[in-house]
Amino acid sequence: MSHQFDSRPIGVFDSGIGGLTVLQALIQKFPTENFLYLGDTARLPYGSKSAPTVRKYSEQNMNFLVSRDVKAIVVACNTASTQVSETEFMGRPVYNVIDPGSLLASQKTKNKNVAILGTRATVKSDIYRKKIQAFESTIQVESIACPLFVPLAEEGWHDDEITRLVAERYLTPLKNKIVDTVVLGCTHYPLLKNTLQKILGPAVNLIDSGDAISQLLAVDFTSGKILKNNSEEQNDLKVCLTDFGPQFESLATQLIQSVSDRTIQFETVSVI
Amino acid sequence: MSHQFDSRPIGVFDSGIGGLTVLQALIQKFPTENFLYLGDTARLPYGSKSAPTVRKYSEQNMNFLVSRDVKAIVVACNTASTQVSETEFMGRPVYNVIDPGSLLASQKTKNKNVAILGTRATVKSDIYRKKIQAFESTIQVESIACPLFVPLAEEGWHDDEITRLVAERYLTPLKNKIVDTVVLGCTHYPLLKNTLQKILGPAVNLIDSGDAISQLLAVDFTSGKILKNNSEEQNDLKVCLTDFGPQFESLATQLIQSVSDRTIQFETVSVI
Repeated sequence: MSHQFDSRPIGVFDSGIGGLTVLQALIQKFPTENFLYLGDTARLPYGSKSAPTVRKYSEQNMNFLVSRDVKAIVVACNTASTQVSETEFMGRPVYNVIDPGSLLASQKTKNKNVAILGTRATVKSDIYRKKIQAFESTIQVESIACPLFVPLAEEGWHDDEITRLVAERYLTPLKNKIVDTVVLGCTHYPLLKNTLQKILGPAVNLIDSGDAISQLLAVDFTSGKILKNNSEEQNDLKVCLTDFGPQFESLATQLIQSVSDRTIQFETVSVI
Repeated sequence: MSHQFDSRPIGVFDSGIGGLTVLQALIQKFPTENFLYLGDTARLPYGSKSAPTVRKYSEQNMNFLVSRDVKAIVVACNTASTQVSETEFMGRPVYNVIDPGSLLASQKTKNKNVAILGTRATVKSDIYRKKIQAFESTIQVESIACPLFVPLAEEGWHDDEITRLVAERYLTPLKNKIVDTVVLGCTHYPLLKNTLQKILGPAVNLIDSGDAISQLLAVDFTSGKILKNNSEEQNDLKVCLTDFGPQFESLATQLIQSVSDRTIQFETVSVI
């Protein structure tokens, strides 16, 4: 098994730019793999939409990735992950970001007090609490919806006074609590990591979906559940967007180039 | 002509809650009319999306309103209005918010210095400058994209310290300028009117899409281009949403009840 290879790309999808933080982590961890990223920019964001709508969009995205013959599907969006419970779709393994994030949080917390920051939809689903307590039932979980974090991240105000004030307001319920582990339960939030770490203090663990899912994929590469790419040279990165957007393209280029010298091919696609 | 009546509703659409500020103005100005509001909440917001995508969504919304037999179509969204140039669609008169807003701004400015606040898409279209200068070519127009205003309005932080800081940052280019008229070029922005007026000062005119379009409709009611509803009693208000959303429903109810005692019938619809 370990002598077989698979050059097909790993498919990664998100509503927009947030999933790029996951893609960054995957590219760093698996530099010889090919990737196909789908950003559903024509319908972003997902975090304010209902569960059935997010499910429908996620299925359409997965069908698109299968039509492009990916070898695995990474749901690089926490809101979408609340609606993708299957571990296989059309014969491809599916990885959501919530399972590995919950596992990592349950492993990292020493004092059994965890907080989840997420979109309204993710917080409403209550899925992190259920998953974390399934690993360790004594862990206390507090969830906080932070709707402005996504537009602040998209505005590029990452290490910014206004972002700090917004974050302080959202994090008020954590004051006088003993939370030692905070899940960045939206793939946009790692862009605001510096600001959040400053408010929470250096002792608090921040759980990042990109790190969490990379660890899970590494296990499945080792076991042979997904096969590695043979070539050390060919490492394509294709970014498909459902809306044409120069702003997204420049941000994607900037984020990817900070971790890799891959050239990005952009394509506008329809997933409906 | 003035003795004929038409009981069909006026159709109003927006991507989400912003158009409710236009609906409020229309209900106050035309209390005996029936209204059908469409909020495309499954695909909101439009302000960060490309022109072709916004055009496609707007056409689908207009087709939906026609299928519900409205007597006129009000495009209660500035971003959508940049892509709706027709004055008639399937035999119904169409009103965008940009034409009346531009007219009102060109009439109100004394010193011929106007600023436009809008979404990225609206500012990129440069349509307000073109329309205002078509009325009066000597008017100077400065446009500023304010992407965080929509999520701040949706978060309910209308008269708020953080909103003031964000607005001060966006309005920095107006410091040391002599602008006397500012167009709230997004139908969400009237929700932040108090904060904006405080920063700009009481002497600056704020142009609100709801007021502007109501004046235009009043003219067309008088001329008989659109016929009034006969009944003084029946004044329905139906709100159709493309996504199911309790949050939108409660906000809509609150905004409408502040100006009218109409009961609202909600319905989840598909426009694709």
